[in-house]
Amino acid sequence: YPLSQSVRVAFTASRTANFAPSNLDQPIVFDQLHSNLGDMYDPHIGRFTSPVNGTYVFIFNILKLAINVPLYINLMRNEEVIVSAYANDGAPDHETASNHAILPLFHGDQVWLRLHRGAIYGSTWKYSTFSGFLLYQD
Amino acid sequence: YPLSQSVRVAFTASRTANFAPSNLDQPIVFDQLHSNLGDMYDPHIGRFTSPVNGTYVFIFNILKLAINVPLYINLMRNEEVIVSAYANDGAPDHETASNHAILPLFHGDQVWLRLHRGAIYGSTWKYSTFSGFLLYQD
Amino acid sequence: YPLSQSVRVAFTASRTANFAPSNLDQPIVFDQLHSNLGDMYDPHIGRFTSPVNGTYVFIFNILKLAINVPLYINLMRNEEVIVSAYANDGAPDHETASNHAILPLFHGDQVWLRLHRGAIYGSTWKYSTFSGFLLYQD
Repeated sequence: YPLSQSVRVAFTASRTANFAPSNLDQPIVFDQLHSNLGDMYDPHIGRFTSPVNGTYVFIFNILKLAINVPLYINLMRNEEVIVSAYANDGAPDHETASNHAILPLFHGDQVWLRLHRGAIYGSTWKYSTFSGFLLYQD
Repeated sequence: YPLSQSVRVAFTASRTANFAPSNLDQPIVFDQLHSNLGDMYDPHIGRFTSPVNGTYVFIFNILKLAINVPLYINLMRNEEVIVSAYANDGAPDHETASNHAILPLFHGDQVWLRLHRGAIYGSTWKYSTFSGFLLYQD
Repeated sequence: YPLSQSVRVAFTASRTANFAPSNLDQPIVFDQLHSNLGDMYDPHIGRFTSPVNGTYVFIFNILKLAINVPLYINLMRNEEVIVSAYANDGAPDHETASNHAILPLFHGDQVWLRLHRGAIYGSTWKYSTFSGFLLYQD
């Protein structure tokens, strides 16, 4: 088949302020958008919603606060943990929790980052970033 | 030319169990597949085989065991080291070895991760992940 | 619309030698090219120039020297900081500064990495890597 991909979806969101919730397993909401082609990342709830069935790529890098609490991040598809990332530093110091995944999504699936435990460093230099894009539409 | 890309190839594999070989330079075999469009990643040997000439993207994040041995990972094209990643932590603690590359591949080229030295942490939260996809078919 | 993407742009550059400038805020020049489809990454100045309006993906992983100076990296679009990465290790040891972004670029925009502070470890195993590719042409 000649490819006739009519849907274009891509976003990068970052944090410019710390995020240190007092409870476990909180959704990470990012406050700055660098791109949001197709407008499928909702910055109010921190979730990307798949507009079409297809194969999507997600990448994240999250910098922990320089405190003595480890950082645990989960990449979620709906309410399922897909992949995770961990960062800690004995100093205590910053360290980045990073991971990625290429996933099949159905129309309406939601992908988001969950802060299982720990605290995120935010600054105007934007060390903490979450992105996704549609690679192949079904 | 109008693009008529007929081949779609993308995979993400992760580890759910530790991998601590006793010898250097072992291929990393991942035991869970999140996607394998085109079926070109072989989970038995841990190698991706290029189905067509083209430009491919590879990304990996590998979490080390919390032991006092540094982790060295090589991204291999056939038997050649393309790029590498290192992780260590004096605590001892976990730390992630991450890198990526965009590579031209010929039909039949194989791309895989080599654990030069160290040990990988695996869990059902999947901290250690290897992905690739076809960006542009020649 | 059926997609008729006629432009293909993708590069990965890496460093095989240390980079330890004596001044802050220096452009990082990479000395090995793994791919440079479209020839838009200039290895002499370390800058990628966008050939067309579109949505581009950039990824970097930079390994610090094993010295007691933290590493700060900025991903720049022209003279603007888009996202940043930090690495430090109390040991002192290596650690990787990683981040990424998906960005809209105009024809002629330049994207590059700036070493704000610190020093980069280079070796023939290529631990420090910078990549970009055109995801969607406008």
